Amino acid sequence: MNEKKRLLIVCSKGTLDMAFPPFMMATTAASMDWEVHLYFTFWGMDIITNSKALKISPVGNPSLGLPNVVGIIPGMTAVATWMMKRKMRESHMPTLESLIEMAKQAGVKFHACSPTMKLSGITKEDLIPQCDDIIGAATFLDMAGDDAVTLFI
Amino acid sequence: MNEKKRLLIVCSKGTLDMAFPPFMMATTAASMDWEVHLYFTFWGMDIITNSKALKISPVGNPSLGLPNVVGIIPGMTAVATWMMKRKMRESHMPTLESLIEMAKQAGVKFHACSPTMKLSGITKEDLIPQCDDIIGAATFLDMAGDDAVTLFI
Amino acid sequence: MNEKKRLLIVCSKGTLDMAFPPFMMATTAASMDWEVHLYFTFWGMDIITNSKALKISPVGNPSLGLPNVVGIIPGMTAVATWMMKRKMRESHMPTLESLIEMAKQAGVKFHACSPTMKLSGITKEDLIPQCDDIIGAATFLDMAGDDAVTLFI
Repeated sequence: MNEKKRLLIVCSKGTLDMAFPPFMMATTAASMDWEVHLYFTFWGMDIITNSKALKISPVGNPSLGLPNVVGIIPGMTAVATWMMKRKMRESHMPTLESLIEMAKQAGVKFHACSPTMKLSGITKEDLIPQCDDIIGAATFLDMAGDDAVTLFI
Repeated sequence: MNEKKRLLIVCSKGTLDMAFPPFMMATTAASMDWEVHLYFTFWGMDIITNSKALKISPVGNPSLGLPNVVGIIPGMTAVATWMMKRKMRESHMPTLESLIEMAKQAGVKFHACSPTMKLSGITKEDLIPQCDDIIGAATFLDMAGDDAVTLFI
Repeated sequence: MNEKKRLLIVCSKGTLDMAFPPFMMATTAASMDWEVHLYFTFWGMDIITNSKALKISPVGNPSLGLPNVVGIIPGMTAVATWMMKRKMRESHMPTLESLIEMAKQAGVKFHACSPTMKLSGITKEDLIPQCDDIIGAATFLDMAGDDAVTLFI
């Protein structure tokens, strides 16, 4: 077989702690020459939405009528999030911003979820430029059904 | 190979936001002629338990000695859940009730988790009629080990 | 094929409700003669860290600058956790301590996540003796890429 191994990750969370694991695995897999796809859905869309991406903010997210959860770990306060970010910086962990860049440079594909966009009113213009395309569940399943390692985070 | 592709999803959460993704994927996969199984466990059992299913309520769940989490997004208030439901209605998203019906009509199999039933005191009579059977982890693993796409949500 | 089936689980949560499912599946799979690996990462590291493992405590976790989440279900109070533990005892459910022992005796491998250790300052000496080794994402992916059933919990 000459085929590349493939990793597919559904990114469904917008919190800092659950945004790191998919990027760490994706970047590692891409560096091992795997084909890697991140499918952002539900709260995970916050990671690739311009107005919310890369921001750590406790302010409300009017599009869903719900508090913005980017970087806010459930049950934790904004202070704890700030402390976690400081700790990550002190430990020389890459930031989410640099993980996004590293992933793109390594060839990881970013897919936005069309039903989530419909639900939340997010448009194509709201997506960060690193996003490759907008797909639905059928396209994701087509990719998953072809012997990929598939994780829901 | 004439074999159908297969999708197995462990549904472990009883919150509205984490109840939608398995049904959306399951219904899509079934419409693509995949064989699809949903294995409801832990809080996910709330989705297929008569007294809790399909209800959005902040009241306590006496069987587990814990607050009922159906439809209550962690860290969100009941008001936010209500706003999310209103938003979904405005966006013409299907309700959880209709997703359950669509999934059944498409041939998706619903499995209740026997250890969770033992833990929480849920009996066969408490399950919604759409539930096909009650299985343990061994049966789930037998299905998963046969080249299925397997997700834990 | 004489090869054993394989189950890989990423354990990313340190709460009581999300610590049980991986151990239940792992122990069941091992009893079916599968090769089973648990990869503890992020909050899941609390399960295999001496000072935190097996403790149900609401006190802060100074290493991450965040509250210790072992046994604290998000959005639940310590009282609810205590009630859940009592209920599990009354239902003759195994404790987390005995699940760890059952898993080890059944041959389940425990892997600690090296990036999480770097982030949180956990050292090899902090790990419970049941932990087999410390690995990174690349080693995990190597195992996953070889036709294993892979779950992220």
